[in-house]
Amino acid sequence: LSHDLEMLSPEEMVKRVVAGDSSALARLISLFEQSVSETLSLRAALHPHLRGAHVVGFTGTPGSGKSTLIARLTAIYRKADKSVGVLAVDPTSPYSGGAVLGDRIRMNEHATDRNVFIRSLATRGDLGGVPRIVKSAKRAMDVAGLDPILIETAGVGQTELAVMDAVDTVVAVLVPGGGDGIQMLKAGLLEIADIFVVNKSDQPGAEAVAAELELMLNLGNNPKGENRPQVILTSAYNDEGTVLVAEAIAQHFQGQSESSYLADRRQEQRRKEFLEATRDGLMAFVERRLRSEEELSAVLAGVERGEQDPIKAAFDFLSDMRLV
Amino acid sequence: LSHDLEMLSPEEMVKRVVAGDSSALARLISLFEQSVSETLSLRAALHPHLRGAHVVGFTGTPGSGKSTLIARLTAIYRKADKSVGVLAVDPTSPYSGGAVLGDRIRMNEHATDRNVFIRSLATRGDLGGVPRIVKSAKRAMDVAGLDPILIETAGVGQTELAVMDAVDTVVAVLVPGGGDGIQMLKAGLLEIADIFVVNKSDQPGAEAVAAELELMLNLGNNPKGENRPQVILTSAYNDEGTVLVAEAIAQHFQGQSESSYLADRRQEQRRKEFLEATRDGLMAFVERRLRSEEELSAVLAGVERGEQDPIKAAFDFLSDMRLV
Repeated sequence: LSHDLEMLSPEEMVKRVVAGDSSALARLISLFEQSVSETLSLRAALHPHLRGAHVVGFTGTPGSGKSTLIARLTAIYRKADKSVGVLAVDPTSPYSGGAVLGDRIRMNEHATDRNVFIRSLATRGDLGGVPRIVKSAKRAMDVAGLDPILIETAGVGQTELAVMDAVDTVVAVLVPGGGDGIQMLKAGLLEIADIFVVNKSDQPGAEAVAAELELMLNLGNNPKGENRPQVILTSAYNDEGTVLVAEAIAQHFQGQSESSYLADRRQEQRRKEFLEATRDGLMAFVERRLRSEEELSAVLAGVERGEQDPIKAAFDFLSDMRLV
Repeated sequence: LSHDLEMLSPEEMVKRVVAGDSSALARLISLFEQSVSETLSLRAALHPHLRGAHVVGFTGTPGSGKSTLIARLTAIYRKADKSVGVLAVDPTSPYSGGAVLGDRIRMNEHATDRNVFIRSLATRGDLGGVPRIVKSAKRAMDVAGLDPILIETAGVGQTELAVMDAVDTVVAVLVPGGGDGIQMLKAGLLEIADIFVVNKSDQPGAEAVAAELELMLNLGNNPKGENRPQVILTSAYNDEGTVLVAEAIAQHFQGQSESSYLADRRQEQRRKEFLEATRDGLMAFVERRLRSEEELSAVLAGVERGEQDPIKAAFDFLSDMRLV
């Protein structure tokens, strides 16, 4: 079957994805993982079929229970007869055929459900590449008719921040006692959150974390003005508070859709994706023009030892390559 | 006199700076403010005369009393017969001929002192440009024989972080009650601080801020290993604790000099300055290759409206300009 798929033209492959063929969708995402420049025709073929699904991002430190929360939300969406896409940017993601939380919640109960598509992306070395792949994979899942699309990230760094650029609603998941609030604050993730979930509410300190968040939001540390983010206590493990999270996600999307905020946000997403691709393309052009990396290293070593003025050396180097 | 200076060759101008001519130094810094590409020969002429002065950066929210602290430190250094350079990256800097704190401390008492050179840099629009100018100005002041060189920044953002790249010792100045710790944490300034000063120690809450900092440092939130930053309470206004700050600064420099840390730090500074200049030069090259900004705007507007796939549009755009 996968051999079949390799023979298809971009248009035929996208046609299968539009028809809900999950093998074609999986294959398409694999191609996006492998190359940007060789999948331009696939991107172009997807474009006319975009449906505009609600994309929800989940961010938080490892161990905060994001996967369990997503499994619970998936069950809620399935009850409402929605087709759910789950995209996990996490090499240690528990989705790939395994059980989440032993016998209590099985994500692979959803895995055999044709209306749930679950995919893990390996993060690999190239950090800048992950957000790019997420954005392509999101488009493919949208064209496949999955709605909502839930994107889970593994940590609280620059990659996660860049991934959250691709979503309509950002859910920040915190837990008591981990000091992860500080880490998320440093990464800039608290500022972009639309909904705060304090998970593991059965553990001591959960109410205090929620109170601190409320205080921070009251102090005006949130740039979202009137759309003040909700703070929700949950115990995803015990399925407590998860319906409230689903409701808050729906409310946020509705509020955005009724105002111009969603349209603006998506316009900004398209703008960023274009400018990032332009910048990446330019950098690739420049790298091809560099005579050799060794040449640069030799100049750099001299600069580091203080033999030459750094700025003068940079201009001389560019001048040698006729790039000034 | 300034007309005279304009006629000089780079070598002659640098010769005057080496001899301690403060008019020539002032003129040189003005030239660095105006252009990078036209001052390459000046940078190159300065390079052989670098002396390696101790450069100390002061960062903190506006109103934290950095200027008063620097005025007090300048008096301490003058008593030890040192020539002091002060570089303020702040459009509202009080140094330019004015009094700091009314009658109590006059920076212009130092302004008439030939062994104190004070310079404010206007920040203007171009944020990326400020750190670059600071690095050139610092080199010029070093060649002029000023040591230490004290660099004051105006706020707690990316520019301040980039300016702190140019110094040997980072002093973070905090005050009680302002919540500026959070702001500095977000800007990444707490992580790079070598010395913490809690100023306005006569105000309530100062001890608590100092205790919080100690706690943070004990929790291992500092990447500097054994060189654990000192936390010093001061009232710069009342000249209390300022001698301790001067001692901590000297200790930090000595500790760095005795280990390989100072050499490593300066090597990394040179490396960064080279790579930044290379990147800036490449961007300038690319901008000259762009046919027109209007052309880019037209493509971008279509992308924002969702008419084209962003990545495909970026590659088509680069391809049109033969940059792929």
